Amino acid sequence: MKVLILGIDGYIGWSLALRLISRGHDVYGLDNFITRRRVREVGSDSLLPLLSFSKRVERVKDTYGKGIEFTRGDASDPKVIYDVIKRYKPDAIVHLAEQRSAPYSMIDLKHALSTMHGNIQSTMSLLYAVKDIKPDAHIVKLGTMGEYGTPNIDIPEGFFEVEYHGRRDYLPFPKFAGSWYHWTKVHDSNNLMFANKLWKTRITDVMQGVVYGTRTREITETGAYTRFDIDEVWGTALNRFCAQAIAKMPVTPYGKGGQTRGFLSLEDSIQCLTIGIENPPENGEYRVFNQFYEHYSVLDLANKVSKIYRKLYGGDVTIEHVPNPRVEMEEHYYNPEHKKLFELGYRTVRTLEDELSIILSDINRHRRRLDRLRHVIMPKTSWRKSSGLDMLKARR
Amino acid sequence: MKVLILGIDGYIGWSLALRLISRGHDVYGLDNFITRRRVREVGSDSLLPLLSFSKRVERVKDTYGKGIEFTRGDASDPKVIYDVIKRYKPDAIVHLAEQRSAPYSMIDLKHALSTMHGNIQSTMSLLYAVKDIKPDAHIVKLGTMGEYGTPNIDIPEGFFEVEYHGRRDYLPFPKFAGSWYHWTKVHDSNNLMFANKLWKTRITDVMQGVVYGTRTREITETGAYTRFDIDEVWGTALNRFCAQAIAKMPVTPYGKGGQTRGFLSLEDSIQCLTIGIENPPENGEYRVFNQFYEHYSVLDLANKVSKIYRKLYGGDVTIEHVPNPRVEMEEHYYNPEHKKLFELGYRTVRTLEDELSIILSDINRHRRRLDRLRHVIMPKTSWRKSSGLDMLKARR
Repeated sequence: MKVLILGIDGYIGWSLALRLISRGHDVYGLDNFITRRRVREVGSDSLLPLLSFSKRVERVKDTYGKGIEFTRGDASDPKVIYDVIKRYKPDAIVHLAEQRSAPYSMIDLKHALSTMHGNIQSTMSLLYAVKDIKPDAHIVKLGTMGEYGTPNIDIPEGFFEVEYHGRRDYLPFPKFAGSWYHWTKVHDSNNLMFANKLWKTRITDVMQGVVYGTRTREITETGAYTRFDIDEVWGTALNRFCAQAIAKMPVTPYGKGGQTRGFLSLEDSIQCLTIGIENPPENGEYRVFNQFYEHYSVLDLANKVSKIYRKLYGGDVTIEHVPNPRVEMEEHYYNPEHKKLFELGYRTVRTLEDELSIILSDINRHRRRLDRLRHVIMPKTSWRKSSGLDMLKARR
Repeated sequence: MKVLILGIDGYIGWSLALRLISRGHDVYGLDNFITRRRVREVGSDSLLPLLSFSKRVERVKDTYGKGIEFTRGDASDPKVIYDVIKRYKPDAIVHLAEQRSAPYSMIDLKHALSTMHGNIQSTMSLLYAVKDIKPDAHIVKLGTMGEYGTPNIDIPEGFFEVEYHGRRDYLPFPKFAGSWYHWTKVHDSNNLMFANKLWKTRITDVMQGVVYGTRTREITETGAYTRFDIDEVWGTALNRFCAQAIAKMPVTPYGKGGQTRGFLSLEDSIQCLTIGIENPPENGEYRVFNQFYEHYSVLDLANKVSKIYRKLYGGDVTIEHVPNPRVEMEEHYYNPEHKKLFELGYRTVRTLEDELSIILSDINRHRRRLDRLRHVIMPKTSWRKSSGLDMLKARR
């Protein structure tokens, strides 16, 4: 199958490229390396050292005897998107080229707008390009479980039957996201649904949980790490906790720590995306996957990190609750459904505890890089203080 | 009360300014006259002749002894929004400065993106400016009943109680809009809800029905017409039907004509907005109004136009169904709720049939302008054919 990955240089993009190559697919990639630059913008870097993209492709050739055709460009530029789809005529396009950090989008108005425009424009351009050039291509779009927020009822996979005043309809589940970034994903999902209605575009909209892990089988085989961020802006809570444990800092849940989210390992995420690509929806279908394995609270994560750290290294980890810079419920009901991927054959490969041993060992192996990065872990971005004043001062 | 109207030169903006002035409020306005230019872009013009903005303000001074402070600028430019809010420190801000045509947003990818970015950016900038400068100001934001689409169940006013798997929550009603323009209003509503959660901003989000009419009391008193568009892109179905009747052309519903929408007269729209402004929500409230009086199908409108035309001018009007350029259901259930404005005192002033007599007479009075504009009435913009190819050709 010909698969084009937008954002192939990213955490998921690179891991997915390796898997697809190893399974014999033809992989084409687009990236402008903006995440590498944006992570530096906040004074950070991937904790695990990254090869340049050309060196990555060499490793792939050495290991699997097959390369990756790559275009350098910006996925939010319609011309770039039209060009790659014209050039590669892909059967499937996986869109991983959006700004993916909630705190980054909350820094100030400037970052809110750039996230809004970049993300929406890349998805809109992709929808039009597929319609104009390769209308039977399957779009696999990365959304997030965060689109749903934390309602006090079960969360279905995208749609549900509603009864109201004695009548029934099958409607999209109401969403309530928790950052401008998360809202861009809701806006994208809405735009995807509408494009599907207009043009019958085949779409898989992936509501993905939080992904953890440093390795897939192919990362180990090639030795070409995918990125692993531990800073406030680009790292997830689990990544930060692991880094804090190895750095002998307290592990710092935001607020009470009862915030609960769906999670899955990088191995599982790549398995799920591969299942989605290799089992496309019917022509004309807009399909939603809730893509996660199990759910944990932030405090569960802190306790697991502490437990595995003790098992591996013998010491104790302090858990220190810090004021929550976000605006979110810290205790709530959470029960999202997730059946469709299991029906298509998804089976989990590694539990959180297995994976935590690997993550902690990988971080421990790079303790010197960690020493340079430990100052970027604690939160500086406050949801409520997000402002436009600095942006305007800078323009004068 | 100090009221800032963004988009004060538009159809609703101008009519609202007159009403607020006549009720003794201090009115401040922002506009960049882009609708005047965009209507010319599609080869059209307001059927009723418009005074320049400065002449409009003179008429207001002559009639009510009080002027309007005006700033020329683009509401999607954060600097402009910050400046007017700093300068005027308004108690209420009515945001009418978005691109408001569904067909315009469907012309091609370029128009889809400019509508998306302009509308979203103006609302985001406004939210940040209010938060940063005048956090107790009340934002009255114009959305549309079209955000809801046409579900097979009743439509509540924004939120409803959902039961799912035996549990209950009070959630935003799921939306399903019918054009990129309508979706920008959904994206705005979502962004407004989130800003309200972040900063407790006071917001009235107005899901307005289709507005018809050429006059309010103050338009007659000042002789300063508001705009009235009859072309495919900027005119509503009712406006087009009235123009067709007077031009002795067939009246042309799209498809079967069973498409049903909420409607209200310009008099009623201005009354409702005034009620919203003069009765602001509590501090910290995000409030949704379904702002319409009754609902009609497109075919109902055609029949009413035909009936009133016969009464006024004696002749018969031909009704000719034309292929539907839009993607929409042509027969469906439609029963939106609308209680809140009635509870605040809204009472309808003119029925559709009263208003139709006035509209037809106003058009008849400008038959020479109508002769120049009759070629712009029939549809050229096809929802399904919207493409990005021309935009990219133009860029090479």
